[in-house]
Amino acid sequence: MGWMADETGLDRNAANHVPLTPLSFLQRGAQVFRTRTAVIYGPHRKSYAEYHERVTRLASALTGMGVRPGDVVATILPNIPAQAEAHFGVPACGAVLNAINTRLDADTVAYILDHGQAKVVLCDPHFMDMLTAAMARMEGPAPQVIEVADRHGGAPAASEHLEYEDLLARGDPDLAWIMPGDEWESLALNYTSGTTGRPKGVVYHHRGAYLNAMGQVLSWRMVLHPVYLTIVPLFHCNGWCHTWMMPVLGGTLVCCRDIAAKPIFDAIADEGVTHFGGAPIVLNALVNAPPEARRTFDHVVEVFTAGAPPAPATLAKIETMGFNITHVYGLTETYGPATECCWSADWDHLQGADRAAVKARQGVAMPFMEPVDVWDDEDRPVPRDGTTKGEIVFRGNGVMKGYLKNPEATAEAFAGGVFRSGDIAVIHPDSYVQIADRAKDIIISGGENVSSVEVEGCLMGHDAVSLCAVVAKPDEKWGEVPCAFVELKDGADATEAELIAYARERLAGFKTPKRVVFRDLPKTSTGKIQKFELRSLARDL
Amino acid sequence: MGWMADETGLDRNAANHVPLTPLSFLQRGAQVFRTRTAVIYGPHRKSYAEYHERVTRLASALTGMGVRPGDVVATILPNIPAQAEAHFGVPACGAVLNAINTRLDADTVAYILDHGQAKVVLCDPHFMDMLTAAMARMEGPAPQVIEVADRHGGAPAASEHLEYEDLLARGDPDLAWIMPGDEWESLALNYTSGTTGRPKGVVYHHRGAYLNAMGQVLSWRMVLHPVYLTIVPLFHCNGWCHTWMMPVLGGTLVCCRDIAAKPIFDAIADEGVTHFGGAPIVLNALVNAPPEARRTFDHVVEVFTAGAPPAPATLAKIETMGFNITHVYGLTETYGPATECCWSADWDHLQGADRAAVKARQGVAMPFMEPVDVWDDEDRPVPRDGTTKGEIVFRGNGVMKGYLKNPEATAEAFAGGVFRSGDIAVIHPDSYVQIADRAKDIIISGGENVSSVEVEGCLMGHDAVSLCAVVAKPDEKWGEVPCAFVELKDGADATEAELIAYARERLAGFKTPKRVVFRDLPKTSTGKIQKFELRSLARDL
Ligand SMILES: Nc1ncnc2c1ncn2[C@@H]1O[C@H](COP(=O)(O)OP(=O)(O)OP(=O)(O)O)[C@@H](O)[C@H]1O
Ligand SMILES: Nc1ncnc2c1ncn2[C@@H]1O[C@H](COP(=O)(O)OP(=O)(O)OP(=O)(O)O)[C@@H](O)[C@H]1O
Ligand SMILES: [Mg+2]
Ligand SMILES: [Mg+2]
Repeated sequence: MGWMADETGLDRNAANHVPLTPLSFLQRGAQVFRTRTAVIYGPHRKSYAEYHERVTRLASALTGMGVRPGDVVATILPNIPAQAEAHFGVPACGAVLNAINTRLDADTVAYILDHGQAKVVLCDPHFMDMLTAAMARMEGPAPQVIEVADRHGGAPAASEHLEYEDLLARGDPDLAWIMPGDEWESLALNYTSGTTGRPKGVVYHHRGAYLNAMGQVLSWRMVLHPVYLTIVPLFHCNGWCHTWMMPVLGGTLVCCRDIAAKPIFDAIADEGVTHFGGAPIVLNALVNAPPEARRTFDHVVEVFTAGAPPAPATLAKIETMGFNITHVYGLTETYGPATECCWSADWDHLQGADRAAVKARQGVAMPFMEPVDVWDDEDRPVPRDGTTKGEIVFRGNGVMKGYLKNPEATAEAFAGGVFRSGDIAVIHPDSYVQIADRAKDIIISGGENVSSVEVEGCLMGHDAVSLCAVVAKPDEKWGEVPCAFVELKDGADATEAELIAYARERLAGFKTPKRVVFRDLPKTSTGKIQKFELRSLARDL
Repeated sequence: MGWMADETGLDRNAANHVPLTPLSFLQRGAQVFRTRTAVIYGPHRKSYAEYHERVTRLASALTGMGVRPGDVVATILPNIPAQAEAHFGVPACGAVLNAINTRLDADTVAYILDHGQAKVVLCDPHFMDMLTAAMARMEGPAPQVIEVADRHGGAPAASEHLEYEDLLARGDPDLAWIMPGDEWESLALNYTSGTTGRPKGVVYHHRGAYLNAMGQVLSWRMVLHPVYLTIVPLFHCNGWCHTWMMPVLGGTLVCCRDIAAKPIFDAIADEGVTHFGGAPIVLNALVNAPPEARRTFDHVVEVFTAGAPPAPATLAKIETMGFNITHVYGLTETYGPATECCWSADWDHLQGADRAAVKARQGVAMPFMEPVDVWDDEDRPVPRDGTTKGEIVFRGNGVMKGYLKNPEATAEAFAGGVFRSGDIAVIHPDSYVQIADRAKDIIISGGENVSSVEVEGCLMGHDAVSLCAVVAKPDEKWGEVPCAFVELKDGADATEAELIAYARERLAGFKTPKRVVFRDLPKTSTGKIQKFELRSLARDL
């Protein structure tokens, strides 16, 4: 290893080694970008100096409530300024942020509050009843509650709890932040979406959030002063670390409480939004937006999309609308995006479906990750042939510490010295990975593996289809057969037979769905389709 | 600190903690940017795959020569591809790169080779005689020599030593690189310019080079695929870490053996160079270039300038020529640039001299550094008033490990838990620092401190002056008085009396030079003026 023969006096010291933390970004931002606008939410427009002051007050006031380093502070908030402030203010008092999904039921929230042992929870008025119900079901001590009123968003204070602005007023604007002494200290606790079962508490460290944020800047080809719209919920992988990233770029965070086509188009046209991240379902909403929701704009909006594979048909359409889509992929366990479908000039000539097909691949490791790989059942890399399937495995500084109070699940996830994603993929000769399916979503029909993603991609090409999901339906003869659930576009029409015929023309027989059901698809708060619910529907068909 | 109550199973492991190293950039680049052009030098045009292969062969061949992890490998090379390859190939076999200044005398090189204990040295034919003389003067064992022929640059092989391409041919293109097990391992050994005395051996670690490179991308507003011209010698702070940075951006490194206006304009016009770094003297060369050396181009070239304060007059002129200048500042001890004069939209309306004056400030800490400060004699921060002088002190991940085999100098440099730059500056109310002078260059006249930088800035505003340096001249009455050494522009004319009168109109009496001497200024290889030589000339006037 690279130690020289004589390294006397060359050790780490206070001058040459500072633990990596996204807190540094805002400390620097408050100095370098003092007068620039940091956060916008309707009438709320705060400069970096003001943002920093509010964050400092929050840290101080939380300390005043008894929050100690290592304690958990939870939030149940939409993407409003208080949620962004908590991303800095909670760690600035040494605590760990647990941003809880606002669409969860009281039962799951009770589980999370007990499991994470939150000392304080900041809650939006709209979720106060749910929180009250959750706290009633808790086994351990209940957290202290702060209500975050949002008059602009139609959510005025609705309880007797201390209000957030009053809390800030108690704080000392000159408090010295508690910076991590070790970059491995815990920064945030994020529960997984629960797409496949009971949510697990993923623990992030300061180092990972710092490196992820810096690396994504490169992947996203961002320069100073982006205008970023918070579409990804901040309770989902801390909004893919983007809120932590903004201050290092002197960027502006435009908060968006309700995710729909109109407010997105408005923010682009009125605030000059340059970047946002979002699940493919958001792209669908933009593509299918009615004329009255649309606005024109004359810059290109750079979009990161992840969470599920975007349908090539959606990609092909949205790119003509002023959006450049970069497909990225990751998990709660990787702080959000960890691979990117990095564009190559070799593909510049591709148009339409060909271009979209290339973009539909999940791609290569982002700069802060080691090369991503796909392993077979015996932990050997699969051939890079674009057809052999295996499990995506990660290694790198953007991988979680592990699951809170779950060393067994942690050890399982890290077996073999890699993080096992549970996602089934191929790896192409150019080393780009492409997800075939989740391990649990693969359909096995007559001994053949059918990728639900492939069948969905086919059906999404049909003009009448707005959204669809394909799952396994038990079958006496074949074991399982593909079964499709479809949402049609407003005013569009199609029959089951028509869609089956459409698929049969384009897919191998065993991949063709045997049933097509028209209905609203159940989704998680992050816009993912809950296939486990569809599987139980399919079972009963 | 942020440790949770129960962190069982949440330790670092092989999957979630990878030592930071710029080697990762090229490993990833070879995969993601496989077919893109990585390095250009005349007919030499290598893709990332080829660059990676040549680097791997170098690492393998060095191992074959007996180089072991922690050993030093030196280079005495201009900015040619072999020098860039050494930046990856030497650490890829676990060794430490010592890029030696090609303009040093045999005596100093002997000192450096002895002090660093280089096992191997890669040398350009033009410096072979100097190296032979240096090796004859060494006290310890001489290194093995590899000659790097450069036919394109007019330097064919001139010795019996093994030639570089033959060395590469011996290497295994599939060798697995030795990656650091600890990011604190040593990566490079850089001797200071020796502007103020015997050069000191500054040791860099992998972590610092990684973070410096990532941070500079942001400061420089770089996006993927820059075309970078190597004007800063790679033996000077490893070219400010830019060669390590390129692969994370899929950028192209355009090598430039001889630094002059014509090849620079040619590279911009012919290769589409988008970025380069260089001392202010390079900007001067461009501003004063004769018409036949100039080329037109239609993009803006982004320039980092550092090494000495650029004269406002130069800045004002070059910005109209298609260059955007960002003034940065740092030391060998900070891996090159560590502060940046980050542009604020508040200054957009400034023009000409006002704009240049703002840009002449050294600025604020780059993203990988903690806020920079200015301390008085008692280690207290000076007031941020733009007038009180003190010493610039640094803290952050872009600070060296220390000086090799010199724990006393290391301890002195780090006294008080900061790195002491030896540069005298003021800090403005907006927290931007501005260097008044080096501690050793300050002129004390009649008890008043005179900043040589200020007097130089004034004289550079005179139409006939191409370059100047002001130093202290001993004086019976005043203790010291300012004495100016001036290079006139080609064909321009001015007398001593005229320049003194020009300065007197613009400066306080005690700041006005009492003597002006017209002559070529002695410079270091990095384009810095050697004031210690001028001081001895001034003494004898
Ligand atoms: N670009 C993408 N393409 C395909 N699938 C994606 C993409 N991005 C994310 N995913 C899917 O989302 C998963 C990560 O989601 P997340 O961490 O939010 O929770 P979850 O895995 O859905 O829930 P749980 O782990 O609780 O079951 C990945 O494992 C993958 O299956
Ligand atoms: N932008 C700048 N403005 C003013 N001075 C600068 C700037 N950038 C660098 N310098 C000067 O260069 C110095 C760093 O140079 P370097 O590390 O190459 O060696 P040196 O200090 O000149 O040599 P030695 O330390 O051996 O005396 C700084 O301490 C500072 O004095
Ligand atoms: Mg999961
Ligand atoms: Mg120095």
